Amino acid sequence: MTSLFTPRTPRVVAAGKLHRRRDRDRSGQFLAEGPQAVREALRRPGTVLELFGTADGLRRHADLAAAAAAAAVPVSPVTDEALAGLAETVRPQGVVAVCARVDAPLADVLAARPALVAVLVDVRDPGNAGTILRTADAAGADAVVFAGAAVDPYNGKCVRASAGSLFHGALARAADPAAAVADLRAAGLVIRAATGRGDTDLHRLGGALARPTAWVFGSEAHGLPADLLAAADERVRVPLYGAAESLNLAAAAAVCLYASAAARHAPVPR
Amino acid sequence: MTSLFTPRTPRVVAAGKLHRRRDRDRSGQFLAEGPQAVREALRRPGTVLELFGTADGLRRHADLAAAAAAAAVPVSPVTDEALAGLAETVRPQGVVAVCARVDAPLADVLAARPALVAVLVDVRDPGNAGTILRTADAAGADAVVFAGAAVDPYNGKCVRASAGSLFHGALARAADPAAAVADLRAAGLVIRAATGRGDTDLHRLGGALARPTAWVFGSEAHGLPADLLAAADERVRVPLYGAAESLNLAAAAAVCLYASAAARHAPVPR
Repeated sequence: MTSLFTPRTPRVVAAGKLHRRRDRDRSGQFLAEGPQAVREALRRPGTVLELFGTADGLRRHADLAAAAAAAAVPVSPVTDEALAGLAETVRPQGVVAVCARVDAPLADVLAARPALVAVLVDVRDPGNAGTILRTADAAGADAVVFAGAAVDPYNGKCVRASAGSLFHGALARAADPAAAVADLRAAGLVIRAATGRGDTDLHRLGGALARPTAWVFGSEAHGLPADLLAAADERVRVPLYGAAESLNLAAAAAVCLYASAAARHAPVPR
Repeated sequence: MTSLFTPRTPRVVAAGKLHRRRDRDRSGQFLAEGPQAVREALRRPGTVLELFGTADGLRRHADLAAAAAAAAVPVSPVTDEALAGLAETVRPQGVVAVCARVDAPLADVLAARPALVAVLVDVRDPGNAGTILRTADAAGADAVVFAGAAVDPYNGKCVRASAGSLFHGALARAADPAAAVADLRAAGLVIRAATGRGDTDLHRLGGALARPTAWVFGSEAHGLPADLLAAADERVRVPLYGAAESLNLAAAAAVCLYASAAARHAPVPR
């Protein structure tokens, strides 16, 4: 009979510490929970370091266990209690992977000549940040930059909200937003700051939206700092046609990123 | 010295029951928490039935107390403990209003000849539903319809996520989504079902997006039921340009509603 890892097994204890940002920062590792996140992580070579699963979880998601084994990734059966400790959701789906960080230096990301980038400056809510990762991926963005005091992209809620997109495009982290914006501009991107007080109406940009663009989004509570607004090439407003005072950050980002996507992929006029 | 209402004062006890859907349904009342929601509720005549506030909350938001008093709405000072019981957030902002439901029969909503409507079918997450209320308002939608097994629009989390927009446009509730869609079509609206498996690319609709439209959105887990997909005039796909399998529901709704808004408010070509 196989002996399952318990909550007291040292490797489970070590993995459980990755719920804390300090331990993620120190180890360069984080947790991805649930079959969708684990599947996308496994598709990115070198990302998954160990796959934990309950007997039931590994049976239900046999494709994941097989993919892990084929990539020489350890697959470790654990008790329900151990899995519950590694998961953050109320109803965990039986699998949790320990992953290596996927971010790259901004210079490396820019060397690949991205044409559409989302920059999150001081964005604090992990659900918003993860949703924007997912939306940026869907809109065909090449990279997302977490800048300034933005939430840790490896926060469990952010990973879950990204629905696997964390593992798709390029990800960079930048302590200094102004320096990151300067680097993005030097790489040939138009810097478009999304702001409710912008002087440019998104819907009047037309074909100019097809130009290589870095969309810069600010925090939920405070928007973008004045120096970044001033440094942007354009301050763009999503027009408000009704009585709402503003848009939710992730909704505004979806509208902006898809406006760029639509312009870049514009159908040939018929 | 004024005697403050406590958690045991009968009117506070009665208001606290409105956290439960059953009591909201029975009374036709619900709670709006925080200064933004209370302010927007007060702007809609007849909506606020009573304003509860701590001494500090009523002092900080004196404009709300004044507006309530001017509209002959009772203003009831409560203890911090009573306010905490009426609020659902960890840091309540000192004011909670008891409101009368704001939905109207769908027939009344359609009599006003809406040109842009969002229909939420079986949408279960109150945060998503509230965010879509807010986005629909921002995009200039005339009405939102909660249909089928959709979450209660007066759920506290939905009210908060709507950021006041619950009180702006028209709201209807429809037990039978298919009947609601038939009524919307009879009112001259094109029925556009948003679905990841749609045969029409959103970005290829072009100027047709300016036509009066009812956007129909399905549940987070299951999308739209087959009969509604079949009944729609168009099944519209938000194109996925990257590796993401899908968009978050509220993000997809933002892209669809703003595509309609952009077409309706298209700038004159220069």
